[in-house]
Amino acid sequence: MGITVLSTIPGYSIMIILIQCTDRIGLVAAISGVLAHERLNITSLREHVDQAENRFFLRLETALHPDIPKLSAALKDVLPTDASITISTGSKRQIAVMVTKEYHCLADILIKNFFNTLDASVLAVIGNHPNLEDVCRRFGIPFYLVSHEQKTKSEFEQQIIEVLDSLPADYIILAKFMRILSPGFIARFPKKIINIHHSFLPAFVGASPYRQAFERGVKLIGATAHFVTDDLDQGPIITQATIPVSHSLTAEDMITAGKEIETSVLGRAMSLVFNERVFVHKNKTVVFDY
Amino acid sequence: MGITVLSTIPGYSIMIILIQCTDRIGLVAAISGVLAHERLNITSLREHVDQAENRFFLRLETALHPDIPKLSAALKDVLPTDASITISTGSKRQIAVMVTKEYHCLADILIKNFFNTLDASVLAVIGNHPNLEDVCRRFGIPFYLVSHEQKTKSEFEQQIIEVLDSLPADYIILAKFMRILSPGFIARFPKKIINIHHSFLPAFVGASPYRQAFERGVKLIGATAHFVTDDLDQGPIITQATIPVSHSLTAEDMITAGKEIETSVLGRAMSLVFNERVFVHKNKTVVFDY
Amino acid sequence: MGITVLSTIPGYSIMIILIQCTDRIGLVAAISGVLAHERLNITSLREHVDQAENRFFLRLETALHPDIPKLSAALKDVLPTDASITISTGSKRQIAVMVTKEYHCLADILIKNFFNTLDASVLAVIGNHPNLEDVCRRFGIPFYLVSHEQKTKSEFEQQIIEVLDSLPADYIILAKFMRILSPGFIARFPKKIINIHHSFLPAFVGASPYRQAFERGVKLIGATAHFVTDDLDQGPIITQATIPVSHSLTAEDMITAGKEIETSVLGRAMSLVFNERVFVHKNKTVVFDY
Amino acid sequence: MGITVLSTIPGYSIMIILIQCTDRIGLVAAISGVLAHERLNITSLREHVDQAENRFFLRLETALHPDIPKLSAALKDVLPTDASITISTGSKRQIAVMVTKEYHCLADILIKNFFNTLDASVLAVIGNHPNLEDVCRRFGIPFYLVSHEQKTKSEFEQQIIEVLDSLPADYIILAKFMRILSPGFIARFPKKIINIHHSFLPAFVGASPYRQAFERGVKLIGATAHFVTDDLDQGPIITQATIPVSHSLTAEDMITAGKEIETSVLGRAMSLVFNERVFVHKNKTVVFDY
Repeated sequence: MGITVLSTIPGYSIMIILIQCTDRIGLVAAISGVLAHERLNITSLREHVDQAENRFFLRLETALHPDIPKLSAALKDVLPTDASITISTGSKRQIAVMVTKEYHCLADILIKNFFNTLDASVLAVIGNHPNLEDVCRRFGIPFYLVSHEQKTKSEFEQQIIEVLDSLPADYIILAKFMRILSPGFIARFPKKIINIHHSFLPAFVGASPYRQAFERGVKLIGATAHFVTDDLDQGPIITQATIPVSHSLTAEDMITAGKEIETSVLGRAMSLVFNERVFVHKNKTVVFDY
Repeated sequence: MGITVLSTIPGYSIMIILIQCTDRIGLVAAISGVLAHERLNITSLREHVDQAENRFFLRLETALHPDIPKLSAALKDVLPTDASITISTGSKRQIAVMVTKEYHCLADILIKNFFNTLDASVLAVIGNHPNLEDVCRRFGIPFYLVSHEQKTKSEFEQQIIEVLDSLPADYIILAKFMRILSPGFIARFPKKIINIHHSFLPAFVGASPYRQAFERGVKLIGATAHFVTDDLDQGPIITQATIPVSHSLTAEDMITAGKEIETSVLGRAMSLVFNERVFVHKNKTVVFDY
Repeated sequence: MGITVLSTIPGYSIMIILIQCTDRIGLVAAISGVLAHERLNITSLREHVDQAENRFFLRLETALHPDIPKLSAALKDVLPTDASITISTGSKRQIAVMVTKEYHCLADILIKNFFNTLDASVLAVIGNHPNLEDVCRRFGIPFYLVSHEQKTKSEFEQQIIEVLDSLPADYIILAKFMRILSPGFIARFPKKIINIHHSFLPAFVGASPYRQAFERGVKLIGATAHFVTDDLDQGPIITQATIPVSHSLTAEDMITAGKEIETSVLGRAMSLVFNERVFVHKNKTVVFDY
Repeated sequence: MGITVLSTIPGYSIMIILIQCTDRIGLVAAISGVLAHERLNITSLREHVDQAENRFFLRLETALHPDIPKLSAALKDVLPTDASITISTGSKRQIAVMVTKEYHCLADILIKNFFNTLDASVLAVIGNHPNLEDVCRRFGIPFYLVSHEQKTKSEFEQQIIEVLDSLPADYIILAKFMRILSPGFIARFPKKIINIHHSFLPAFVGASPYRQAFERGVKLIGATAHFVTDDLDQGPIITQATIPVSHSLTAEDMITAGKEIETSVLGRAMSLVFNERVFVHKNKTVVFDY
């Protein structure tokens, strides 16, 4: 059982509580009973039971409680021992962003960060190519160049880990980072790495999905945001979307056309995760959308 | 305070409970406490508080209870006096359909009714033109021809009311019924008449919306399903959608292109309403979507 | 080089001309020059050159010409020897429909056929299960029951071929026909068989795509209409679309949710093909959409 | 008759030719005949005749011609006297951007301009509030503060005109500029001012469309990009799109949710206009989309 007291978007005078555990009769009554006892009004609640998995998921919004540890303990007392409880009370997530050469997802993050609408703060950007350093510098965001060239994958990842270990990042956003990370790297950040894949998974796993899409003659292309696990492009999907394409587009045109949907899908995934709307269980997500 | 015991889609071994009332602290705890006491597991729950209106909306799914009146009374005891409680336990809605000349929405309803996927049963179709009688007859559905010609509106509506009064219809579906109904008619069936309007309201209120859309040179057309109130095309919106159109379409082409979106939007609205996912409060809806 | 004089949607006082051939300078001038010489005004024209393939595709709409053979010969004279020319002049396509048990795509076809908005005429329906016979009968459409049981695939297909050989069908629509057809069968009807596949290809090729989608935890499902070739689910894609799904849907719910998008995608593919908007070249299509 | 030799996106080794005129038989033959005579291969062509207006619209892509004036003269010779001919040969559009306080559309333009994917160059930004100066400065784009305070509308507009007159802007982009411009101002820049309106016009004309949308309880919100004419929000629509919203959004949430669709719709409109895909005729557009 884990209790995590996290932070959420600024200006909210609300608490968001997420609970995931084995299902049993009376869980909603137990949880809402604790809140009613504390005189907290629940302004929004969503509960889902995955009956095949016997798994309980609940998200609620309520007024701020002055004593979070006491509230956590009270909730813990009424829940199964495997329950994970997350209480978010108002400060923003902190993120690190990893990139290669493509600018579009990073720029969207930097702009929203600059205008304070990201629901998170960008601590730093790590790139394995130098070309995105300039745009980071213009927004006063630290850029760490960690080239993969003339290094083993292990050396390359060790240098990235050193940067990440120096940051208190809640999430690592792979904003078109084009190197495959090793299972060892990923295991250090479980459920903390979010990737944007430039296809509507599971179609076109792996490299050059737009080239694959062009060769197949598809009439729509897409993008998928997912948590990263050991298995390439197989992690839990957070959100995905598609746009129509026609015969008139070359594979290069599809890459261009895909930029907007990639940016949009990654942006939506971050908004969902940072606003505490996403649960992970095994290889799937439960998303309590807006 | 009203308690309604209704019916829902067949084959479900679940109950759906809808509650709407003035908000106050502890409502979720009170409701879920009653269910826990009855050993009913809540497999899905959505709660929304409209804070500006101080209004509480809740929908939950749980196992069937053997004694609905007892459960209703227990819920009533813990809720504000203005609470409306609806408990749906498995039999289908019954509907009457009103049409004029266009076939597409009616045909979708007849087909789903025939193959038992409508989540409702069609009792009868009332048309003010004879041309849709044939398709009704082919599916064994009674068709009542009530022409508006050579009658006052009052006489016309009185004849329709006589047909409707002979039916135990839960809802009246205006599936492209092209006559404007009087406030007196509508008042007899509050929150029971669902209309499909062939534009994305509030654009193009009233007659010939596709002609209006064509003249304006819009790049998308749409459809809106709404409950019917006294005020033409101003009732609470259930759902709406749009599709892109181009300069190459004439106003007549737009009418053709609109058929699919009209059918789809009305179908979705019926599914939401028949599955107890829609609340009406003042001139808006709360829709707990899939 | 082939010249085909076909038919198109009724009531049109226009001709649609499709030309596909090896590209060379001056083709548009040559074609439009022939039409100008005949005093035919071109009201809509789309031309696309696939430069990688050096392939020319053209579709135009013009007034009816009284002497189609003369016009065809004049066009043939100015085009490369490999040109295929199709001139459509107003009568409807004729189709055969093949089904198994699911009703939704078939019912949409039958309804549009009945109300004369399909842009084609349904000659017959062939089913390998008896359960869709009733709905065909209600619309007066011949239903041929050809069971696959206790037969070799060859015997089964031979019986279907006998039915099809008795019909003058321009296209064969697989409206949720759930048996895999042999290469020999398909070779008899090149570019004439249109299938609806219940996934956004190339994701989830083969059986039970919704089960696959559910297991993978995707956030959208889709449908793909394509011409059928030897290679299962690998033929030229005509059109495809997706809809969002959530964690709350079981695999069975996805099957239900998919019915509307399957119906819509197959309907759109038929409209595009029957209105002479689709070219096939190798394993891709060129679609001159509305 | 006007002949304009403009510029288009960089790196293209193609010419784009747009022709609009009164329709008559033989126009495609005449135009393509001129190109064939010059040994220019047409790789893409779209022609549309608005038959109610007897108006001819044509867009084609072909190889670069070394002598544009000669080509223009040859085309002029074969066309009606009212023909407008635009030949685009490769340099980018130049634009001025007008803003008030909201950053999202401007930031998208600045980012694409910085990474050279806007299909245009930003010459300057004019704002009537100072808060977007910082982001412009970070990208090295001149920002002109022209406050409307303590000025007549005429004085305010005169100051803007002085800035615009100093620039060779092809288009003026109103990227959430929240002041209504006078007919006199607009008349100086016919078909050159593009606005993003934060609703799916013609719904919610004028001020506070999201507040209007919230009050009406709509289930989708949208955005419309249009050319600006004298008549508020009534100019020719270039493109528009919608997104779904639910009861859980306040009017303020809708404003936030609308930012992405506004940015996307304005971005698409600019791409269409800058790539010579949009004709204006009377109060409508003909858009030859990708």
